[in-house]
Order: sequence, then C-alpha cells, then structure tokens
Amino acid sequence: MPKPFRIVFILYPRITQLDFTGPYEVLARVPGAETIIASKDGGTLPTELGLTFTNLAKLSDIDRADLIMIPGGPGQTDAMLDPDFMAQVKRLGESAQYITSVCTGSLILGAAGLIKGKRAGSHWAYRELLTNFGAIPDDARVVRDGNVITGGGVTAGIDIALTIVADLAGDDVAKMIQLAIEYAPAPPFNCGRPEVAEEKTVAAVKQVFAGFAEQRRKAIEGLKGAA
Amino acid sequence: MPKPFRIVFILYPRITQLDFTGPYEVLARVPGAETIIASKDGGTLPTELGLTFTNLAKLSDIDRADLIMIPGGPGQTDAMLDPDFMAQVKRLGESAQYITSVCTGSLILGAAGLIKGKRAGSHWAYRELLTNFGAIPDDARVVRDGNVITGGGVTAGIDIALTIVADLAGDDVAKMIQLAIEYAPAPPFNCGRPEVAEEKTVAAVKQVFAGFAEQRRKAIEGLKGAA
Repeated sequence: MPKPFRIVFILYPRITQLDFTGPYEVLARVPGAETIIASKDGGTLPTELGLTFTNLAKLSDIDRADLIMIPGGPGQTDAMLDPDFMAQVKRLGESAQYITSVCTGSLILGAAGLIKGKRAGSHWAYRELLTNFGAIPDDARVVRDGNVITGGGVTAGIDIALTIVADLAGDDVAKMIQLAIEYAPAPPFNCGRPEVAEEKTVAAVKQVFAGFAEQRRKAIEGLKGAA
Repeated sequence: MPKPFRIVFILYPRITQLDFTGPYEVLARVPGAETIIASKDGGTLPTELGLTFTNLAKLSDIDRADLIMIPGGPGQTDAMLDPDFMAQVKRLGESAQYITSVCTGSLILGAAGLIKGKRAGSHWAYRELLTNFGAIPDDARVVRDGNVITGGGVTAGIDIALTIVADLAGDDVAKMIQLAIEYAPAPPFNCGRPEVAEEKTVAAVKQVFAGFAEQRRKAIEGLKGAA
C-alpha cells in the first residue's frame, strides 16, 4: 500500500456512531495509514443518539482518498438527498482504491453510482433497497466484490474493518489489532440476525424501524424519478 | 428501575474511544434511560487516536448517578493520578446502584476504592494489576459481582453493556437492542484472547503495550506508597 495510505471516513449528521467508531478503532491502528474524519461542513457533527464529534475536516478540502468508508444511520436519507454532499462522495470515491461502508452507508455508495453491478451488504432491515441502485444485496456480514467492501448493520463494521486491514497490511497486522482490542466476542444472546432471533424480537425491531424504512423507500423513489 | 434511570459515562483525556462508544451505543437505546457523557472539565475531549468529542457535561455539575460506566485507555494512568477527577468518581460511584467499567476502566474503579474484595475484569494485558486494589482479577469477558459489572478489553464493552441492559430492563429489551445493532459477530480470525492467539501475535502486542504496562505499574506503586 502507498504510504501514507489515506483513509477518509465520510460522515454526515445523525450517523449511527458505532457504525463509524468500530471501524475507526481498527483502521486508525494500521501502521502507515493516515485517517481523516470528514463531513460536508467540517467542524462539529451530531450523531444519532446525542454524542457529538468535533474537529472534523471538510470534505471539499480533501484532494484524494485511497479508501473511503461511509457509516450508516438515520441521517443517511437526508445525506443521500444532499447534492453537495453526494458530489464529494462521488469525487473521492471515483479515484479511491477501496470503496467501503457499514450498514446503510451502502445506500449512499449506491446513490453515488459507485456500486452498480456489485454485490453489497447493508443493515438487514434495509438491504433489499440496494436493488434500486443496480447493486446485488448480499446477506453476508462482510461482503467483498472487487474493491468494494461492505457488510451488515452497525457492529458488522468491526468485522468489515478487520477484513480490510488483512487485505491492506496482511493477516499478521490484522491479528495484532484484533488481539489488542480483545475482539473475542461473546454476545449474551443468539439474536443478532433476524434469521436466528425470536419472532417477537424481529417484529418489535421492525416496528421501531418502520418509519425509517418508509422514509428511505420514498427518498429513493424520488431520486429515481429525478434521474 | 427508576425513571429516568441516569447512566453517567465518566470520561477522561485519551480514553480508547471504542471502550466508551460500544457501551454508549447499547445503553443509550434503553427506554427510560438518561445518558450523560461527562469529564472533569466538560466540553471537548481528545481520545486516544485523534477522534474528538464535544458537548460533554462537567462531572462536578452532576448531582447523582444510578449507574457509572468508566472506559479504559492510555489516559487511564494520568486520570487515576488526578485527585480532583478521582474525587468525582468516588462521589458518583458511592451512591450509584451499578458500578461498571470496560477494559482498564476497572483500575480507576480500583483506585477509587469501589471494588475492594470484588471480582473484576480488565484488558488481558493489565488484569493482574487489579490485585493492588484488593480486587480479584477474573478473565471472563463479562464479570459480575453484585452491583459491580466489569469485563475484558475494548470490544468487551458491547457484551458488558448488553448484560447490563438485560439486568436493568429485561432480556427482551436487550435482545431487541442486540438485533437492532446486528450484533452477530463474525471475527475474521480466532485470536481475540492471548489464550487462543498465536505466540508471535501475543509477543508483538505485548511489545506494543510494554510501555503502558510499566507506566501503570509504577503509578500504582506510587499511589500505594502515598496511601
């Protein structure tokens, strides 16, 4: 990999912070990597549940990226509808060596035209929406298709990022980072995917997400109508 | 649980951000919970690898907590040596219903006298240091001893937090949160604990951590000398 290898995290208001902070913890530990955290306006950024980041770079100030990583979150719909934001995603994505995302970040990659014809993952509740962008939904936790590395919702970002590190810097470096962050997960329940969760749990979470699903569907229809 | 149930995240400069952001993602989703992110000075806080938080509350402005949660990180040694910070930890911890931490956050609980005689976890590289505070090191990923819930390093915070939610709000709520954040981890390697990692990986990570281990050991000796 070129040194410094420049990783640009592309953020927007109301991201799900763990979509970003999981991969950030992993990727910022790669020797020889430069990590830049950026948003359209730079400065301060509110995330979904109240945590606020600051000192962000401004996307338009960044000349190029070797890797872009876009997290998901409730703000994904508004971000996808913002032409200035999307112009920056396209610009940085088109010349990047790796195009990556976590969760519904893949819908932004889709709307930017960066994953047409590619297999891609997303949060289980919104994955099928990828077909609207000519991408092929894949239910794997980490989905790799050429230079596009995406995957499942929120916590999948840690697995996605470790997979990226293995590719960038080799298995030994990825293993060191995995041991340093003591990533030997032991979830208290076996319910992290709808296929294994109880029906009542799936129904309850779908109800919480129903508004977001409808909002995303409508926004994508609008984009297709405008195209 | 009392409503609103007040969860106070106690942060300090150079925390390992994922120690905090994993549990925050989980605990901020508990219905009826109020989450406060606080530091000694409030305002803006730099974390270990460059990510900066802002809009933090000031610990001395918080009258009480139902649960305190303290993450670990390289800044843990300086935090433990800061009497003003430690006075706030003691004050909020002594009246809290739950005393919790991730990673080396348990060394701060130990230095505050909050886990004497209790079993507690910590990052694998620093766990034995707990004996200096009269706590009993436990190598489980999530360690519960009465109202003290601690555990392993960095990513263990997600498992610790889901365990706390099950206790606070019941298994059904914890399962909903686990499914919402798609927590069905699939680590690319089996090396997240020294017991299962290759020898060369353990040796390489220990070398990276050697300076921190020595710094922590000396600081704790100093505290014991002063006590």
